[in-house]
Formats: sequence, C-alpha cells, structure tokens
Amino acid sequence: MTITLYELTGADDDLRFSPYVWRIRLALAHKGLDHEGVAWRFTEKDAIAFSGQGKVPVLVDGDKTVIDSWDIACHLEDAYPDHPSLFGGEAGRAGAYFVKHWFETGVNRFIAKMVVADVWAVLHEKDKSYFRETREKALGKKLEEVCTDEDAARADLAQALTPMRAVLQTQPYLGGAAPNFMDYIPFAAFMWARCSSPRALLESDDPVHGWRERMLDSLGGMPRAAKCVETG
Amino acid sequence: MTITLYELTGADDDLRFSPYVWRIRLALAHKGLDHEGVAWRFTEKDAIAFSGQGKVPVLVDGDKTVIDSWDIACHLEDAYPDHPSLFGGEAGRAGAYFVKHWFETGVNRFIAKMVVADVWAVLHEKDKSYFRETREKALGKKLEEVCTDEDAARADLAQALTPMRAVLQTQPYLGGAAPNFMDYIPFAAFMWARCSSPRALLESDDPVHGWRERMLDSLGGMPRAAKCVETG
Repeated sequence: MTITLYELTGADDDLRFSPYVWRIRLALAHKGLDHEGVAWRFTEKDAIAFSGQGKVPVLVDGDKTVIDSWDIACHLEDAYPDHPSLFGGEAGRAGAYFVKHWFETGVNRFIAKMVVADVWAVLHEKDKSYFRETREKALGKKLEEVCTDEDAARADLAQALTPMRAVLQTQPYLGGAAPNFMDYIPFAAFMWARCSSPRALLESDDPVHGWRERMLDSLGGMPRAAKCVETG
Repeated sequence: MTITLYELTGADDDLRFSPYVWRIRLALAHKGLDHEGVAWRFTEKDAIAFSGQGKVPVLVDGDKTVIDSWDIACHLEDAYPDHPSLFGGEAGRAGAYFVKHWFETGVNRFIAKMVVADVWAVLHEKDKSYFRETREKALGKKLEEVCTDEDAARADLAQALTPMRAVLQTQPYLGGAAPNFMDYIPFAAFMWARCSSPRALLESDDPVHGWRERMLDSLGGMPRAAKCVETG
C-alpha cells in the first residue's frame, strides 16, 4: 500500500522545505516506510481540498487521510507498531508532546524570523504574492524588515535553545542514545532553514550545532543529501 | 532494607520544603517505597559529610548513598524495576530529562523570586544567617528586595509556563493520562512554594492551577496533607 505525503515545494520541484512536512519525512525514514512525496504549493488549495483544510502535511495511507504533523506521527506509530518506534512507548510520546509545545511556543518564531524572507525567495512565482501578503499581515511588517539584526536574532535563538543545549551536554540526542521524534521536532525546523536560507543559525561551538551535524548524518544521511537552496 | 532520605527542614520539624527533596518524596511515593525522612538543616553540613558534599537530597539505600535528585530518581527506577515506573521506559526518561532542564533553566528562578524571602522566614534560627548571606550574595540584593512587584512576578511565571500549559490543554498530566516524573519535577517546585510561602503563584483559571490541584490529590493525597507554613 502506497503512503502519499503532500510536501510543500519551492520553485525547484525538489526543494521540499516545510518544517512540519520535514517532521513526517523524518518519521517515515525512521520507521523505514517508503512514501511518494507529492509536490504541493501554497496556492494549490484544490489539490488537498479532500483533506478538509488547506495546509500540509497531508498524509494519505491507503483509505485513510491524516492531517497535522503530530497526528500523522501518531498515526504512523500506531499503524506500524512493528516498525522502529518514533516515541519509545506512551511516556516517550508524552515527552515528545512536551518538546513539540516547547518548540512551537518558545523557539520556532526565532527561526522563522531569520528565514522568512529567504523562504519567500525560494517560492514558485505563483506562491510569492500569497506568502508575502499572509506573512506580512501576520507579522505586521514587510518581510525584508523582519530580521534587520541577524546577530541579535541568532543570539535570541541561542537563548531559546537553552534547555536543549543543557540536555545535549550529557547525551547525544534529546531521545537519549539515539534520535527519536523528540529530536525530529526541532531538527525539522533546522531542515526548513537549511533548505531555504543561506544564513547560519547556530554558532559552530554550540552543542546544538554538533547535534544538528549528527542529525544530518542520521537516517543514512538522508537529511544531509536533501536539496537545499543554491548559495553563492 | 530501610531507605533514608535527608530532608531540608524548617524551624518546624515537620516542614519539609526543599523542591529537590520533594522530587524524591514524590518519586518514593509513586514507587510505593517507604522511607525514613531525616530532618536536616542547611548548617548541618557534618551530618551529610559522608555523602562527599553539602546539599540535600541525600538518599541512603542499604549500603548505597546517592546524591542529586536526578541521580536518585534514576537509582530508584533502576533498583526497583518491579515497582511502578517513574519514567515509563528509556524514551520517557529522556522526556523527563528534557523537562528537568526546561524547568531548571527557564522556570525555577521565577518561583524562587516569589518565595525566597518567605523561605527565609520559615527557617530554623540557626540557618537564617547562612541562607540570607548565601542567597543575597548570589542574587545581588537583600531578600526583601527580590520580589517588589508580585503581580509582575506572577505574570513572568505564567509566561515561563507556556509550553506546560499548552500540553495541559489536551491531557491531564505532562506524563499523559497519569502523572510520572515529568510531572513531579515542576510539581516539586510548587510544593516548595506551598510549604514555605503564603503567596498565590498561579491564577485560578490557569490550566496549570487545575493540574496542581490534581497533583495535590495524587499519591493518595500525600502532597495536600503535607505540613505547610501557617498562614494568617
């Protein structure tokens, strides 16, 4: 049975940069599940209307359609219990759920601030107006005015990552000795940045930088091999 | 075999208020392990010199002495595998480890700010000078000047609890359907405040307030029955 994942895509058909889609790409690879990734762009609402809403990721697994990255991860975990576990049991699922909320309420906006203008630049022409209008309305300023002090933004992100850095002082992954969905949640956002932006988000001596390097080499090196924005 | 726990104690022999000791009191109750709690005060360094350092909790379990609340929790989990699990497996342990670092780097100081002067007030006379001197040196101000705007401090704490509140919107405990060590880490700090301070740390309509009420009734109501500072 084919698993289909609708994946936000840039002007380049191979540039798949959505952080929420990346959570699922990583989860599928972790569980050893093949999938067909369908290129999808912001303005192609009709193509995913069958899911009852207008955002990706949308996963179609046989006769089941699942939306929302957390619910998709839970679906994969529960539907494929004999494949490697994403959560490591119910308590591990609760741990990942906490990391999800920590990341989404306390960290994500600092990455978004640094990359939002670069994301616009990699979009397909047909998405650019939509993206600019919706994001500028939400942010209350022009995309080019969101991150005027990159050093300060990088310092804010480093501060927001404090608890993660503390964990990584004594173990290689948030999940412990090996990565699990606790790692994929923040790493997916770093893949979003890597795919769409030339900016350096982390200082090279930051333990989070070392973790990101290990994550890039995880899953057989799939993350490091992913198509990124062309730089310079 | 008797488990002995050295517990920080106020002027009142029954007032056991240390947040790190509370983590272990809760962990022992969760695992259904009896223990003898030995009253200990800050200046009684000689009484725990056998542990090689000068802080509590110190746990003595047979011929084994364990210090540091995280290491003690891990010892209890690993030494008593047939008792109810604190972590729910290795991934759950990693989740609790993340919550520990989140709490200690991002939340604890806001509770400390609100209660530190009240903690001083409940101490035994022989501890008062030691506590005032060490804390005022660390904080750079007199204890009475640490929290001059209680409303602002309460708002800062509420902000710091954002990810925890988000989790509690959809499940009753951080650990999921039932409390585990992910819950005991923050709850222990709320017990610290409850035992030592008359101040209200949470607004009554905060989901974290509802969680704290459930936690007070957990473990057979042991937390709610614990000796607290006399108020008004």
